[in-house]
Amino acid sequence: MTFEIKERDAAGRLCHFTTKHGDVTTPNLLPVINPNKMMITPKEMKRRFGIDILITNSYIIYKNPELKKKALESGVHALIDFDGSIMTDSGTFQNYVYGDVHLDPIEIVQFQRDIKSDIGTILDVFGTPGQTKTVSEQGVQETIERAIKSIPHKGEMLLACPVQGSVYPELREHCARQLSALSADFFPIGGVVPLMENQRYSDLVRCILAAKQGLDPSKPVHLFGAGHPLVFSLAVALGCDFFDSSAYAKYANDGRMIFQWGTEKFDDLTELPCSCPICSKYTKAELAELDSKERTTQIALHNLYISFMELKIIRVAITEGWLWELVEQRAAANPFLSEALRVLREPTLLNWLEQYEPASKKTAVFYTGPQTMYRPMMFRYHKRLLSRYEPLFHTTVVFPEGTKPYSMFYSREMNHILKHKNVNLVVQSTLGPVPFELDEMYPLAQSVFPLCIDQETEEKAQQLMEKFLGNTDVIGWDNYASISSEEPLKHPMDFDKRRISAVSDMQFGRGASEALFTERLRIVKSKRTGKIRNIICDGYHVVSMRAEDGLFTLKIEGGHRLHKRIKHPLLRVVAADDAVPFIKEGKSLFAKFVLECDPDLRPFDECLIVDEQDTFLGVGRTLLTRSEMLSFRHGVAVKTRESIKQG
Amino acid sequence: MTFEIKERDAAGRLCHFTTKHGDVTTPNLLPVINPNKMMITPKEMKRRFGIDILITNSYIIYKNPELKKKALESGVHALIDFDGSIMTDSGTFQNYVYGDVHLDPIEIVQFQRDIKSDIGTILDVFGTPGQTKTVSEQGVQETIERAIKSIPHKGEMLLACPVQGSVYPELREHCARQLSALSADFFPIGGVVPLMENQRYSDLVRCILAAKQGLDPSKPVHLFGAGHPLVFSLAVALGCDFFDSSAYAKYANDGRMIFQWGTEKFDDLTELPCSCPICSKYTKAELAELDSKERTTQIALHNLYISFMELKIIRVAITEGWLWELVEQRAAANPFLSEALRVLREPTLLNWLEQYEPASKKTAVFYTGPQTMYRPMMFRYHKRLLSRYEPLFHTTVVFPEGTKPYSMFYSREMNHILKHKNVNLVVQSTLGPVPFELDEMYPLAQSVFPLCIDQETEEKAQQLMEKFLGNTDVIGWDNYASISSEEPLKHPMDFDKRRISAVSDMQFGRGASEALFTERLRIVKSKRTGKIRNIICDGYHVVSMRAEDGLFTLKIEGGHRLHKRIKHPLLRVVAADDAVPFIKEGKSLFAKFVLECDPDLRPFDECLIVDEQDTFLGVGRTLLTRSEMLSFRHGVAVKTRESIKQG
Repeated sequence: MTFEIKERDAAGRLCHFTTKHGDVTTPNLLPVINPNKMMITPKEMKRRFGIDILITNSYIIYKNPELKKKALESGVHALIDFDGSIMTDSGTFQNYVYGDVHLDPIEIVQFQRDIKSDIGTILDVFGTPGQTKTVSEQGVQETIERAIKSIPHKGEMLLACPVQGSVYPELREHCARQLSALSADFFPIGGVVPLMENQRYSDLVRCILAAKQGLDPSKPVHLFGAGHPLVFSLAVALGCDFFDSSAYAKYANDGRMIFQWGTEKFDDLTELPCSCPICSKYTKAELAELDSKERTTQIALHNLYISFMELKIIRVAITEGWLWELVEQRAAANPFLSEALRVLREPTLLNWLEQYEPASKKTAVFYTGPQTMYRPMMFRYHKRLLSRYEPLFHTTVVFPEGTKPYSMFYSREMNHILKHKNVNLVVQSTLGPVPFELDEMYPLAQSVFPLCIDQETEEKAQQLMEKFLGNTDVIGWDNYASISSEEPLKHPMDFDKRRISAVSDMQFGRGASEALFTERLRIVKSKRTGKIRNIICDGYHVVSMRAEDGLFTLKIEGGHRLHKRIKHPLLRVVAADDAVPFIKEGKSLFAKFVLECDPDLRPFDECLIVDEQDTFLGVGRTLLTRSEMLSFRHGVAVKTRESIKQG
Repeated sequence: MTFEIKERDAAGRLCHFTTKHGDVTTPNLLPVINPNKMMITPKEMKRRFGIDILITNSYIIYKNPELKKKALESGVHALIDFDGSIMTDSGTFQNYVYGDVHLDPIEIVQFQRDIKSDIGTILDVFGTPGQTKTVSEQGVQETIERAIKSIPHKGEMLLACPVQGSVYPELREHCARQLSALSADFFPIGGVVPLMENQRYSDLVRCILAAKQGLDPSKPVHLFGAGHPLVFSLAVALGCDFFDSSAYAKYANDGRMIFQWGTEKFDDLTELPCSCPICSKYTKAELAELDSKERTTQIALHNLYISFMELKIIRVAITEGWLWELVEQRAAANPFLSEALRVLREPTLLNWLEQYEPASKKTAVFYTGPQTMYRPMMFRYHKRLLSRYEPLFHTTVVFPEGTKPYSMFYSREMNHILKHKNVNLVVQSTLGPVPFELDEMYPLAQSVFPLCIDQETEEKAQQLMEKFLGNTDVIGWDNYASISSEEPLKHPMDFDKRRISAVSDMQFGRGASEALFTERLRIVKSKRTGKIRNIICDGYHVVSMRAEDGLFTLKIEGGHRLHKRIKHPLLRVVAADDAVPFIKEGKSLFAKFVLECDPDLRPFDECLIVDEQDTFLGVGRTLLTRSEMLSFRHGVAVKTRESIKQG
């Protein structure tokens, strides 16, 4: 098995996953195939949806003498006629539903191995939401013990060990941690179907996050039994990689059609509100006229088209960096989902999410409502503003807010004020306080907020403003404007210095600007846009400012300077000796060669690459968080930008 | 032409529209066909999307000698090979874009008539958003004059007269009112393309609403140049019936794909986040490999699939009653659209919207955020609660809030309190105050609000609570609970009486309960649900309470009683003498026979049908608002439930 992060957004990730039967891109959906009665064959699914992976039930095969015989003789792939990856479930869910499944936990794992399942599942103990903590604890313990006993029997099969623990976050995290310590390959989050059936999405979110906090980040996470696309984007944003859907068939049998916003009864619809190939081929009336079995199949196909479309949208959103926007859009379709989003405002959970949030994204931050103010990226900005930004003066001029508050002042008015150099300029924006020096830095200039903001957002921005201003003296914009004159700004360099100093502190931490910049400073600007591009100190190119996000890219000289002044372990990624020669050649640092990493580095942050003795090797851009670097066996941890010469 | 409302929600409507070339269901989209170069032929559009109507440009035909000749000889339908309805534009937009269109306004109308366009358009004066009010006023005046001069030349062609007036609501309304007084058939809202291009959706909303307030409600309204599905649902909710799209082709030429949430560059996409037949047939890589012209056509087809899908979703939402939910979902995809929704909180606009809001709907009210509290239905509930609901006692017990606050108390606790009959029971819910007597009435029991509510919603609910309680004495639930005992409720009838009294006042106005109910009262309940079904007074069946929305259906006896005690014109729809015999036979009252209507009646309200002398004829359910009844020539105004015997 390989599992490797290729793209990321929120705490979600787009990964390449391989089994003996081929490659799979995550997030992905495993359609559930009932080997007894296939409504749609795996072949047809492959043709229509390009599926690479599916899930079937080993218990059903095991119980049916004919299927069992065939599976043991020629393997599960031949049995259901599919040459992609096959995951098998163990009968746990059947035991939960029917209550009378008598199975030997080891035997069913051996059976899955023997029928050559790519990913088998242990017979875990399904924890129901209603059970007491004591009962749940026993179930967790039993699950862990079965995992321990099952692993020696897995052979070449990957083994999935579900995380249980009912609605008790501490049990979920404990279970996840224990299973992660074993050599399990794949982690379903189990026992969540009753939560989803009752739209208890807040509890679902807590279960996922508790599990994720205990799990080895380098293994795939599967939300067991999640088949409605409504929850996909949120679950992915929290770090789930796989879903499985029997919903497509169950809902179809029940005459229900799945949509992005929920479910509709076929009979109640006046027309088909969809453009999938099924709904484009048939009108509602034509579909109604088909015989019942054929109609059910067509509805099941529609359900799969919608489900796979949602996964495609999610993968595009991850790649382009608008996964939170998508999550918030979906939450607008369902009050319980929207309630669940509020759970993510809890400080410990927000802190966990913030770790995974990329340093910048390809797409602007789009405001969708008060919840936007609580996105991990906003949380980070506010936290850093209060801890890393240092106002130069005690007197601050506060500007009123606007959609793009900063850019509108870039003109006469700002220049008038800037020549009185003993003031700070701050915009009271809808994102909270924005010092002028930071106005091109992600996410400030890359945010699209409407002019009219919800009251909650306004108040939150106001609170942050007050916290930020603390006990500095404040002059309002109106007062100041009246004393301004028409004279142009005399020393634009002064403001540019303030900008590079403030941005570098925000990006690398306090003290970074002193480390990077000295008096012999040359600031090179773009002729076209007038924006800062390169900063040359004492004749050396130290850093570049990126046009797209207003953040710095480190040059080797910048790395040297930071390394000298900013103490270990800050900003460092520590490479193992084996990797050192490759770093020196400018090659990327792979996760498996990372020994340590500054826990404050975020994905896509600029970093220093050092060896075990803290010898400076080069500068690069992280692709992973610390915990990912330390657990992943595949993939790049740091993309090296420049390295010291080999010598 | 016929134009008839079939379904409705918000201020939107699903209508049947007919021209000489057939039937069209609105809301609908007219693809723009360029007669010079058809990227997709009308025939192919008919085959794929089942289009019944399209729009082409008479100016382009007129300017091209060959096209002109052919069109005059064999008609525009033959020219573009389409046998459905064809609308033609006049060259106004070309004049706006290129500025050098010299056309005689009358000649171009005559030309459209002569080529047998189903709907021609006058050469109106395009008002740009940047122009002064004076310039805009001149343009409006010129447009009105051209309309006056053009109408005599329309022949059998329907004539569209665009509403202009730039961003000045009073000019828009004036223009709309003047054009409505003429015998124009179709009203485009013009000059809005620059607003949409700049995502000035707040201004767009003001333009639409100003126009709608001046327009004859019985004529189709077309949002000229709106081709991006992002704005469709909001525009429909405000009363637009038609859109036209050249966007599908323009965007495709520019390599851009339309999605529900916005637009994506084809080249930037890693995969195609869609399940339409095009995106299901091709992968991104396969589409990229097609030759450029073919790829553009395929992208244009995708763009149309998405656009028509949105219209199908909207039509389903209207029929099922979740158009506001859809609008709010779409607003979550775009900050400017979300900003535009806030415009609808302005009291005059909210008052206008409330007129059109159905009395109840098939679907529950789904909460999507603070904006839900400002929906016309919520506004109506709060308004009526403050003006029509009369608390019986000065002492009120206030319950804490919950998702479905009322139902959870339907038990021991409520019974304990109810036997102390000198208190009102009120739940402090997320929808504002909910007196127990109203807890099964739409929209209260039919609302799905999450437990965690945005701060703004909480505050709004709190404000309403304070306003509602006024200076009554309040006891908190905790205090009260402590003094309750285990004794069961002794006289459940007392509470049932309070319920029917409160609901009838809320539904029909103060005094209705006294008019309807007397002391000799029998309340018949459902054996299965225990809910009130029928109310018998003095041996007569007066009203029934509907299970689905907890509102009353009037029986003929109920109508008699209301008619006797509630003064003209309240609750009345006045039928012309010609219609009286039909009403007496129990037939529906058609709009063209309505002489007057109580302006406080809302669509789907119960009403009294009377003649000009206020003789009581029967009871029914309105399908239209007063203004619609007085202007529509087609369709049912009141569905008669029962009528007095013919005699």
